[in-house]
Amino acid sequence: MIVIKVGGSDGIDYDALCADVAELYKAGKKLILVHGGSAETNRVAEALGHPPKFVTSPSGYTSRFTDRETLEIFQMVYCGKMNKGIVERLQKHGVNAVGLSGMDGRIWEGKHKTKVRSVENGKIKILRGDHTGTVEKVNTHLIELLSSNGYLPVLTPPAISYEGVGINVDGDRASAALATALKADTMMLLSNIPGLLRNFPDESSLIETIPANDVESYLEYAKDRMKKKVLGAAEAVEGGVGQVIFGDARIENPVSYALEGNGTVIS
Amino acid sequence: MIVIKVGGSDGIDYDALCADVAELYKAGKKLILVHGGSAETNRVAEALGHPPKFVTSPSGYTSRFTDRETLEIFQMVYCGKMNKGIVERLQKHGVNAVGLSGMDGRIWEGKHKTKVRSVENGKIKILRGDHTGTVEKVNTHLIELLSSNGYLPVLTPPAISYEGVGINVDGDRASAALATALKADTMMLLSNIPGLLRNFPDESSLIETIPANDVESYLEYAKDRMKKKVLGAAEAVEGGVGQVIFGDARIENPVSYALEGNGTVIS
Repeated sequence: MIVIKVGGSDGIDYDALCADVAELYKAGKKLILVHGGSAETNRVAEALGHPPKFVTSPSGYTSRFTDRETLEIFQMVYCGKMNKGIVERLQKHGVNAVGLSGMDGRIWEGKHKTKVRSVENGKIKILRGDHTGTVEKVNTHLIELLSSNGYLPVLTPPAISYEGVGINVDGDRASAALATALKADTMMLLSNIPGLLRNFPDESSLIETIPANDVESYLEYAKDRMKKKVLGAAEAVEGGVGQVIFGDARIENPVSYALEGNGTVIS
Repeated sequence: MIVIKVGGSDGIDYDALCADVAELYKAGKKLILVHGGSAETNRVAEALGHPPKFVTSPSGYTSRFTDRETLEIFQMVYCGKMNKGIVERLQKHGVNAVGLSGMDGRIWEGKHKTKVRSVENGKIKILRGDHTGTVEKVNTHLIELLSSNGYLPVLTPPAISYEGVGINVDGDRASAALATALKADTMMLLSNIPGLLRNFPDESSLIETIPANDVESYLEYAKDRMKKKVLGAAEAVEGGVGQVIFGDARIENPVSYALEGNGTVIS
């Protein structure tokens, strides 16, 4: 089983991705596709007059402040436009895809964090009304039911709280939780850079391999959104996933290319 | 099996609907929920600067002209905001809901109509670039798989063309096709009026019963969106569905109330 997570940044070629996924799937690979939608969510939120707000935690992680209105915009883009756009591309290639959020069948469950600490001008502020969380429990039954009945699951945040409220979760770490729960051989995190870079954004400084027992010491090279990918990779390999690959999603055959070992391989 | 279709007009109480659905479901009723999202789609389309355009066919039926951009807005609202909002409400009530579009698992298939005839100022114009169609084939496998494994399916347009393109279909007629394919005992079409009215919009002129063999002669009383409900009802009873009920979705316990025979009952 391979869990493929493709990001939501600009520059990603979803047509190329879906063509490649379809070919591998039809050749018999067991795949689950997870996707993001961040850049498009920013655009739609701006257009709807509710611009995105990002917070940086005291430990340096950036996340989207998700009030109720933002959660609804998030669902529109992630679960509507992005998810059904990917399902449509896969169906065109003859793959019987089924698009789901982490709320459907309670696939991704976690605690609802209503408050978030944000560093602003060097001071820590508390923001309330947040709808975020971390996936603590993966209910694999629905994914396995679909997978074993000829459907390719296409999964996206949000997740759901124990009380049944939608929560925005990081897609990379949620994929790590999924890959762990499914005992995947490989988890792949594809985005608009070739992998972890020693000197971001210099693409020639690609780190090609990371030993599984030393992932966290590479956190120092991770900038912005890459931090959670490194954290997710650490969680996945600790959870028993055979290998994690950071790969480039701007190219033809991005999944096959990463599977050949191109990108940053953590094993 | 009961197929419940709830519309997308203003005034519908989705909280009350989901509370009622949850109670009936937990009491052992076999249910499938289908929903619309028209009013909210109009609002979001306006806000995004791509206002809705409706066309009236030479035979008097009104439908949304669905260019590619409209299809994506449609998916954002129907498959994102509305679908996941309903899934969230049901999950809060302890029902393990799974939200799907007609594209997922190719549940609803039909021909892609790229051209539509529109009557404007008494003249017939041809509009191109449309993404609409009619459900011709229902693939019940996914619905039945979920239903028989403890999940409540929550289904919404769009459907998918034979070539794998998203197509906007009428939700009432798509529900009729679904109810027929599932050999449902009952199909329920809930909206923001109490049923078919002899003198629209006078709610005291409710038509309480329609004989199954004479549905189409009641088309003369149907105004605007009600026309497709009557057409859908005719298709469902011809297809073998035991009864069709037009009910009110603005009230508490809308499903139970309609099941007691309140509204317009076609049988």
